[in-house]
Amino acid sequence: MITASIIGATGFTGAVLTDLLDGHPQVRLDALTSISYAGRRVDEVFPQLRVDGEYVPYDAGRLDASQVVFVCYPHAEAHPVVAELLDGGRRVIDLSADFRLRAAELYPEWYGFSHPRTDLLEQAVYGLPELEREAVTGARLVANPGCFPTGALLALTPLLGPLSPELVVIDAKSGLSGAGRGTTEKTHFSNVHDNFGSYSEVGHRHTVEIRQELERRASSSLSLAFTPHLLPVERGILSTIYLKPAVEMPEQQEVESLLRETYQGEPFVEVVTATPSLREVQYTNHCRLAVRVDRDAGLVKLIAVIDNLVKGASGQALQNMNLMFGLDETLGLERRA
Amino acid sequence: MITASIIGATGFTGAVLTDLLDGHPQVRLDALTSISYAGRRVDEVFPQLRVDGEYVPYDAGRLDASQVVFVCYPHAEAHPVVAELLDGGRRVIDLSADFRLRAAELYPEWYGFSHPRTDLLEQAVYGLPELEREAVTGARLVANPGCFPTGALLALTPLLGPLSPELVVIDAKSGLSGAGRGTTEKTHFSNVHDNFGSYSEVGHRHTVEIRQELERRASSSLSLAFTPHLLPVERGILSTIYLKPAVEMPEQQEVESLLRETYQGEPFVEVVTATPSLREVQYTNHCRLAVRVDRDAGLVKLIAVIDNLVKGASGQALQNMNLMFGLDETLGLERRA
Amino acid sequence: MITASIIGATGFTGAVLTDLLDGHPQVRLDALTSISYAGRRVDEVFPQLRVDGEYVPYDAGRLDASQVVFVCYPHAEAHPVVAELLDGGRRVIDLSADFRLRAAELYPEWYGFSHPRTDLLEQAVYGLPELEREAVTGARLVANPGCFPTGALLALTPLLGPLSPELVVIDAKSGLSGAGRGTTEKTHFSNVHDNFGSYSEVGHRHTVEIRQELERRASSSLSLAFTPHLLPVERGILSTIYLKPAVEMPEQQEVESLLRETYQGEPFVEVVTATPSLREVQYTNHCRLAVRVDRDAGLVKLIAVIDNLVKGASGQALQNMNLMFGLDETLGLERRA
Amino acid sequence: MITASIIGATGFTGAVLTDLLDGHPQVRLDALTSISYAGRRVDEVFPQLRVDGEYVPYDAGRLDASQVVFVCYPHAEAHPVVAELLDGGRRVIDLSADFRLRAAELYPEWYGFSHPRTDLLEQAVYGLPELEREAVTGARLVANPGCFPTGALLALTPLLGPLSPELVVIDAKSGLSGAGRGTTEKTHFSNVHDNFGSYSEVGHRHTVEIRQELERRASSSLSLAFTPHLLPVERGILSTIYLKPAVEMPEQQEVESLLRETYQGEPFVEVVTATPSLREVQYTNHCRLAVRVDRDAGLVKLIAVIDNLVKGASGQALQNMNLMFGLDETLGLERRA
Repeated sequence: MITASIIGATGFTGAVLTDLLDGHPQVRLDALTSISYAGRRVDEVFPQLRVDGEYVPYDAGRLDASQVVFVCYPHAEAHPVVAELLDGGRRVIDLSADFRLRAAELYPEWYGFSHPRTDLLEQAVYGLPELEREAVTGARLVANPGCFPTGALLALTPLLGPLSPELVVIDAKSGLSGAGRGTTEKTHFSNVHDNFGSYSEVGHRHTVEIRQELERRASSSLSLAFTPHLLPVERGILSTIYLKPAVEMPEQQEVESLLRETYQGEPFVEVVTATPSLREVQYTNHCRLAVRVDRDAGLVKLIAVIDNLVKGASGQALQNMNLMFGLDETLGLERRA
Repeated sequence: MITASIIGATGFTGAVLTDLLDGHPQVRLDALTSISYAGRRVDEVFPQLRVDGEYVPYDAGRLDASQVVFVCYPHAEAHPVVAELLDGGRRVIDLSADFRLRAAELYPEWYGFSHPRTDLLEQAVYGLPELEREAVTGARLVANPGCFPTGALLALTPLLGPLSPELVVIDAKSGLSGAGRGTTEKTHFSNVHDNFGSYSEVGHRHTVEIRQELERRASSSLSLAFTPHLLPVERGILSTIYLKPAVEMPEQQEVESLLRETYQGEPFVEVVTATPSLREVQYTNHCRLAVRVDRDAGLVKLIAVIDNLVKGASGQALQNMNLMFGLDETLGLERRA
Repeated sequence: MITASIIGATGFTGAVLTDLLDGHPQVRLDALTSISYAGRRVDEVFPQLRVDGEYVPYDAGRLDASQVVFVCYPHAEAHPVVAELLDGGRRVIDLSADFRLRAAELYPEWYGFSHPRTDLLEQAVYGLPELEREAVTGARLVANPGCFPTGALLALTPLLGPLSPELVVIDAKSGLSGAGRGTTEKTHFSNVHDNFGSYSEVGHRHTVEIRQELERRASSSLSLAFTPHLLPVERGILSTIYLKPAVEMPEQQEVESLLRETYQGEPFVEVVTATPSLREVQYTNHCRLAVRVDRDAGLVKLIAVIDNLVKGASGQALQNMNLMFGLDETLGLERRA
Repeated sequence: MITASIIGATGFTGAVLTDLLDGHPQVRLDALTSISYAGRRVDEVFPQLRVDGEYVPYDAGRLDASQVVFVCYPHAEAHPVVAELLDGGRRVIDLSADFRLRAAELYPEWYGFSHPRTDLLEQAVYGLPELEREAVTGARLVANPGCFPTGALLALTPLLGPLSPELVVIDAKSGLSGAGRGTTEKTHFSNVHDNFGSYSEVGHRHTVEIRQELERRASSSLSLAFTPHLLPVERGILSTIYLKPAVEMPEQQEVESLLRETYQGEPFVEVVTATPSLREVQYTNHCRLAVRVDRDAGLVKLIAVIDNLVKGASGQALQNMNLMFGLDETLGLERRA
C-alpha cells in the first residue's frame, strides 16, 4: 500500500483526485489538507463523494508517513510547499504550473514571480507518461502537465519529425470546470449557460508550455497560435489543431499510422477514425485523437479530446504515481472519475 | 404595406421569419406554406409564436398578391420553386444555397445536382447587405448567404486588400438550431447536451461559398480551411479566424480601424474591443467583430459572432427585403427574434 | 413622455428593466443608479444591452425630474429609499418585498427587520395588474409581486370562490436567474448545470406572500405548501399546483372556463389546453395557465408558466407603470425582453 | 462466473447495462441482441463504451449458455420474449413493465394489451431489492421496477404504517434519458434545452404501479397524484413528495428515524439531512432521501433522488442479479455507470 496525501484537496482537481485515490486498490489516503475547509468532512463539502475523511490544515511535519504528496495549489502558491515537501524527503506530484517550465527566466513574464528553486526545476520531470515514461518512473518531482497542453502534445508530438510543421494553430474548447471552483462572474451560470466565448486569445500561459515541449522535440522552430474557449459543458477539452507541414502533404492514412504506431499498446491514447466528441472521454483518463487531411487548405487537421480534470489533471497525476511506484499504469483509472 | 409569403415556413428559419414578418410594421403576411403542416395553425405548431394564421400547401398560382416571396426549402429543393416564382413575376429571397454559387459547374460536386437555371444564377445577388447594398436594392432574386459565411465574410472582407492573406483558417462553432428541426441522432438532446464535437471537418459546403466570396474580392489566391463544430447551445455562431498576412504584421489598432471604417454607420455590425460572446448577439440581427493580433504566431485572429437564425438567415433575409423595397434597413429588426 | 429612473439598475431585474424602458416609446430614461458600477457605461457592464447611458450613484435630490422611480434593491435595503422617494413626491414601483406584506408584524419573522413605515404599507398596492387593475391605476406606491407568487396567484385566484380549496400545494421550478447575479457556490455553473434540486423547502418567504393574497380573497382558510426548486435554465418559472377542493370535483372544462372568463381580454394571461412549457413565455410578459383534473386523486392540477424576470419582475413593473400613467398596458412589452 | 445476455441491448438501459456487466468481475457477457444494429460493433454504436463485442439478432435457441437474461424491450414487446426464455429454462430480469402489475386485468387499460401469461405474472417478483430482498433471491423472473416508482416507493414505504397517509402527491422531475433514444420532436435538443415542462399529467402508467405497491403495504386506501416533468438534464430523477398523514403530525426527526431504521445497512439507500440534488446520485446506484416536515401545511415533504438509468433501471437490474446468484449485492456497482 502506498500512503498518499493531497495538499489543497478542495479545488476541482483535488476533489477528483480524492475520489480516485480513495478508489485505488493500492493507496491509503493520509492527509487531505485545506485552508478554507479544515475541520469539515469530505462528504459535507462534496456530497457527491462517498469518501470517509476530514480536511486538515497543511502541516509538512505531519506528512512524514506519506510516500507521495499531490500538490493542488494554484501556480505561484505551490512551489514553496513543493520545495518543503521535497526537502523533507517526500516524492511530489505537483499539479500546478510551478515546475513545468524548464527555463527559470520564463516565470516572471508568464507567471509573475521569480522562481526561487532552479535546482528543483532541473529535477522536475514533465509528467506526460506516454512521452516521458522512463523519466517519470524515476522522478522525485513530477510537474503534472496543464490541461490544454496534454491533448495538444499527444496529438502533435509524433508528427514533429515526419511533418516538420512550420505553423501550428490550436483552437481549444474547454468545459467550465477548467475555470475552477472560484465564484466569479466568469463562472456564474448565467454567463456560461447557452453561451460561448474565447478568452486570453493571445498569451495564455499554456502557450509557452506547449511551445517548450514542442521545441524540445522538433528539429526546427515553428509558429504557434493557441486560443482557448469556454464551453457550457462541465468536463472536457476538445482541441482542433491545424498543422502546416513543411514537407509534402501526407495522406490521411500516413498521419493516422504515425499516431497509431506511437501509441500502440498505450492504454489511454486511442486513435480513431470517426469524429470523436467530448462524451467519449468525459470522466475517463483517455485521450482520443483523429486526423483529417485538408489537401485544399494545405493543412493537417487534428482533433484531440480529453477530460480536463482526469487526463488533463488528476487522472494523469495518478497515472504518474502508478509509474513512480512500479504499479500497473491503469490501476485506479479503469472506473469513471 | 408589402405583401410577403414564406415557402416552407415550418423549419427553424421559416418560424423565425414568420415571427419577424408578423412584427414588421410595413408587412402583411400572405401565405405560409408547409407540406407537413398544411391545415394546422401557426401557434399549434409553434406554441411560442403568437401569430395568427394557418399553413397552406404551396401553390404558385395563389401567390400573385405577394410582392416578395421567401423560400425556406432545403438546397436542391428550392430552385424549382424559386424559378417558378420568378417566372411568375415575384421577387424572391432564397434562403437555400441554390443560387449562392455563381459557377453552375460547382453544383454537381458540392450539392449533388446539376443546376437547370444558369440564367437565374447570373441574376442572383449574394445578399450580404453590408457588402452588396446596391446590388441587393435592385435585385429580383437574392441568394441569402449561409450562416457560417455571413460572420466570416464580414470579418475577413475588409482585410483582404490591406493584409493580402495567404492562409485563412476558420474554426466555427454553431448552436444546434443550425442543424435544423429534423429529428435525428445528431439532434437528440442526449447527443448534444454537455457534449461538443466537430463535423464535416473537410469539405463542408460552406467552404466553397466562403472561398467564392473571398476570391471575388481578393487580389490573389489564398488557402482556406473551414471546420464547423456543434455547440450545446440553441442559437449563435462564433467563428475564430486565423489570418496569415502576406504583408508585414499590422498593429491591432490598424486592423480594428480597417474594420471600423468599413462598418461605420452600419446598424448591424459592431467592432468591439472586449471579447464578444454569443450572448451578445443571440436573437438579434447583429454581428460583433473583434481583433487580436498574435505577433508571436504571425497571425491576425478575428472573432465574429452572429445569431445563426437571425443575421445568419431570417433576419438577414428581412434586411434584404427592407433594402429591396426602399425601407429603413432596420425596420422589424430592432426587437429580439 | 414619462421620465423614469431605476435605483439599483445592475442586478438582473434592473438590467431587464433598463432594456424594457429603453425600448418603451413613451419613456425617457433619467437616472440608472448603481453602488458598484457607478461611472461605468451600461453596455460595458452588460454587453448584450444596446443602451446608451452610464450608471450614477444614488442621490434622491437628483431624481426630481423622474415621474416614476423603480427600486430594484434587495429586501430590507429598499424601504428607506422607497420612503425617501415617496416623501419627495415621486411615484414608486418597488420590486423588493418591502411593501408586499400588509401586516407589519410579519416583517421581523419573515424578513428579519422591523418595518419603520406602516403608513406606507397601508398605501402600497400589490401590483398584480390582472387582479388589482383599479388600485394600481391610482397608486403612488406599487409593491411589485414576487416571481413565485405571480404565476401561482394568477392560476389560483379565480378558483378560490368556486372550488373552496382546503389544501393547496405549489411545487415551483425556477430558472437560475431567480437566484440573482451574486457569485456564490449556488450560482456557480458547475453546481447548476446538468443538476436539479430544491431549496428552502419549508418557510420560503414567498409562502407568506402567497398565503396573504389567497386569504384576502378566499372565504375560508386553507392549508398551503410551497416548495421552490432550481432549474438548469436561465429564465422562467413553472409551477405545478395541486388544489384539493372542498366542493364536489369539477370537470376539467368547468375549471378552464373559470380561468378563461376571468382572463378574457387580458393581453398577458393565456389559458391553454396543450401542456405549456417555459419556452412559450421566456423573454415575454405572458403567463400561460393549464388545467388537469385528476379525478382519481381528487385534485385539480394547475400549471402556470411565466418568465421570472419579465412577468415575474421587470415586465410586470412596466405593466404597472403603464397603468399608473394611463398608457396602453402592453406598451413596451410586445417585444422580447 | 455468471453468463449473461441482454435482449434489446441498444436502447439507453441496454447500453448502461452492457457497460455495467462488462465491468462486473463475476459476469461473462454472452449475447447482446439488437434488431436495428445486428452486425455492428458495440463501440461503433456507442463510442463512449469501451466494450469488445458485436450485436447479434435475437435467437432464443442460442442463449442456452446464458444463466440469466436481461430483457430491455419496450412494454408489450417484452412479454413474448420473456415467456420464451423462461420456458427455455433461463432466469430472466425484465426491465419492461410487462410483469410489474400483478392484476392481469390492468394491462388492457394501462398498457393496451391483454396479458397472455397470467401464470408468469404470478411468479414475477417486483425487483426492489431493499423491500423484496428475499423474494428476489429465489426468483426465476424479476420484474424490474419503473424509474419513477423506484425513488417514490423507497421514500414512502417505511412511512405507510406509522403515518397512514390519506393523500400522496408525487411531483417528479426526470432527466431526458428517461424519454429514450427515440428521435422525436420531444427529444430534439431545441425542445429540451433551456426548457422545462410536464407531460402525462393525469394517468401516467407509473401511477398504477406506484399505487399497487403502496396499497399492498398500506393498511388503508389513499389518494395518489403523480405528475412527471422533463428536465434539461441527461440523468436523474428528483421526486418531491407530499404526504398528508391521517395521524398527528410527526416531528422531522421521527420521520427521518423511520427511514434510517428501514435502510440501516443498505448499501444503496442514504437518508440525508442536507437537501440532496441529482448530482449526488448521477451515474450511481444510490438513492438519497430527505425529509422536511411542513407543520403549517400539515404535510410531510420527502425528497428522493436516483439516477433513472442506474438505480431506476440497469443498476437495479444488476443488483437483482447479484441477489439471485448469491453475490455481494454491490458487485459491479461501485463504479460510475
